[in-house]
Amino acid sequence: MTIDITISEVGPRDGLQSIKHIMPTAAKKEWIKAQFEAGTPEIEVGSFVPPKILPQMADSAEVTAFATGLEGLVVAVLVPNLRGLENSVQAGAQKVSIPFSMSETHSLKNVRKTHPQMLQEISSCVAYLDTLPVNQRPKFEVGLATAFGCTMEGPVPEERVIRLAEKVVEIGVDEVGLSDTTGYGNPAQLKRLVRGIWGNCGEDKLTGVHLHNTRGQGLANALMAVELGITTIDSSLGGIGGCPWAPGASGNIVTEDLVFLLESMGLNTGIDLEKLMAVRELVQKALPDEPMYGFIPSAGLPKGFHTN
Amino acid sequence: MTIDITISEVGPRDGLQSIKHIMPTAAKKEWIKAQFEAGTPEIEVGSFVPPKILPQMADSAEVTAFATGLEGLVVAVLVPNLRGLENSVQAGAQKVSIPFSMSETHSLKNVRKTHPQMLQEISSCVAYLDTLPVNQRPKFEVGLATAFGCTMEGPVPEERVIRLAEKVVEIGVDEVGLSDTTGYGNPAQLKRLVRGIWGNCGEDKLTGVHLHNTRGQGLANALMAVELGITTIDSSLGGIGGCPWAPGASGNIVTEDLVFLLESMGLNTGIDLEKLMAVRELVQKALPDEPMYGFIPSAGLPKGFHTN
Repeated sequence: MTIDITISEVGPRDGLQSIKHIMPTAAKKEWIKAQFEAGTPEIEVGSFVPPKILPQMADSAEVTAFATGLEGLVVAVLVPNLRGLENSVQAGAQKVSIPFSMSETHSLKNVRKTHPQMLQEISSCVAYLDTLPVNQRPKFEVGLATAFGCTMEGPVPEERVIRLAEKVVEIGVDEVGLSDTTGYGNPAQLKRLVRGIWGNCGEDKLTGVHLHNTRGQGLANALMAVELGITTIDSSLGGIGGCPWAPGASGNIVTEDLVFLLESMGLNTGIDLEKLMAVRELVQKALPDEPMYGFIPSAGLPKGFHTN
Repeated sequence: MTIDITISEVGPRDGLQSIKHIMPTAAKKEWIKAQFEAGTPEIEVGSFVPPKILPQMADSAEVTAFATGLEGLVVAVLVPNLRGLENSVQAGAQKVSIPFSMSETHSLKNVRKTHPQMLQEISSCVAYLDTLPVNQRPKFEVGLATAFGCTMEGPVPEERVIRLAEKVVEIGVDEVGLSDTTGYGNPAQLKRLVRGIWGNCGEDKLTGVHLHNTRGQGLANALMAVELGITTIDSSLGGIGGCPWAPGASGNIVTEDLVFLLESMGLNTGIDLEKLMAVRELVQKALPDEPMYGFIPSAGLPKGFHTN
């Protein structure tokens, strides 16, 4: 059966980079392998940032190389700049995202770059990718971070997001992704942003969203994305890396709950929910002190429910 | 400004009947008054069941009579049968719902009535209402309970729900409401049920839904309802009465999170979120040992957010 919606598991990156505990490399590999075997088609396995900034991600090259050995898995990673991109390509990454914060205040604080400087960095990335043989070139995506609002700037004008999306598409990136970094987003805003970017850049330039559940709106936003025709949604197993009930928490959508939403609607994710629960147990054992979230793991599946 | 979506607060009924603690009558009145003053247009204030079954609801007549004194508030109540309806009319209820479980197993266990017996009871209710002067006749609604599935029967056939909705509309009830009693529902199923009932009964015969968040899908289902054109949604302040993380919990949608979803989408609920937070504090003081839920109360409102 073909997959209707691709769930991109970001726990090993967005989840693990947000917690203090450093997961051993062997445990990361075990998680990634088990989650791939549960049917997850795409996993963001690491971030190519300097280890002194994020020691949790220091083994990203080794983990990426390992993941590329899992045949059929799309191995995604995050990079902050050209240097990270080069390292990720050497490690064999197949899909690379660079975050570009739509709030310039946030961009300056996060990567010390203005918008023009980020556009320059993205240009350098595309120029580098153009020097690679086709079979080594990863898919290159710009994550439009804080696209739904910023904890420092407040509301982010939608015209700005659409204009910057257009600019990076003109530069030559393969795709942009909409990121609700702050959990500020709502479905109506998501609809306007998706349609605005589609209208200016083409539907093939935006196929994925990265949503947070900080304010409990994650699955409602995911539903709107799916209704519009978005085909890739990021989520984190057990919501690792963010406590949805703590102010300022990242709070990714919980993979288990997202799979249930989609499968119950008759949309095939390729993921076996029972196997996914076993992966959850495995990860909990590796991170015994980290809370894991999700409604489905607590409430259980409805009587008579089965995946597609 | 006109209200786009009517939030029907069910905490004083569905919430309070699900907890062990009995809230004093004075505290109930204070809650209802405060929540009305925060802009809530409709409140389900009690249930006309025998006090020995639900002692938490023993003061429903007094609370209903009090609530009718709040000018502009729609005072809703629940009744299990004709006897309860008669009592609720005497107390001055303006909107009365009778639950009709689409799972016959659940109906037998809950009210010891088969489907034909329930249809007979509903007929008796309509016959009684027809004897009343127009200005004393409340709006009479049948809540299609377990419409999305039953913890005993499992899946409930959609054709059955649509057929029974048609029957009670033929009997002469003003409206039916879709109730996801078990938290089994998904947006695709909700769309099929709403359209099915609309197609057979007319759009004016189904304008409200009662959704639970047991599996974290409450706001996604609410979004679909709103997208379809449903105009009334039930919710419970602080999610009182059901722990969303405990198996078998009722887990109503949290009013605070629902108001945020709708207001952030530009839909007017008439509710002032800051005043609603003050009501939450008031209720928490009256029920110090009861957990209260919600993402918005924990994470706070986005910077720069304002209601419509």
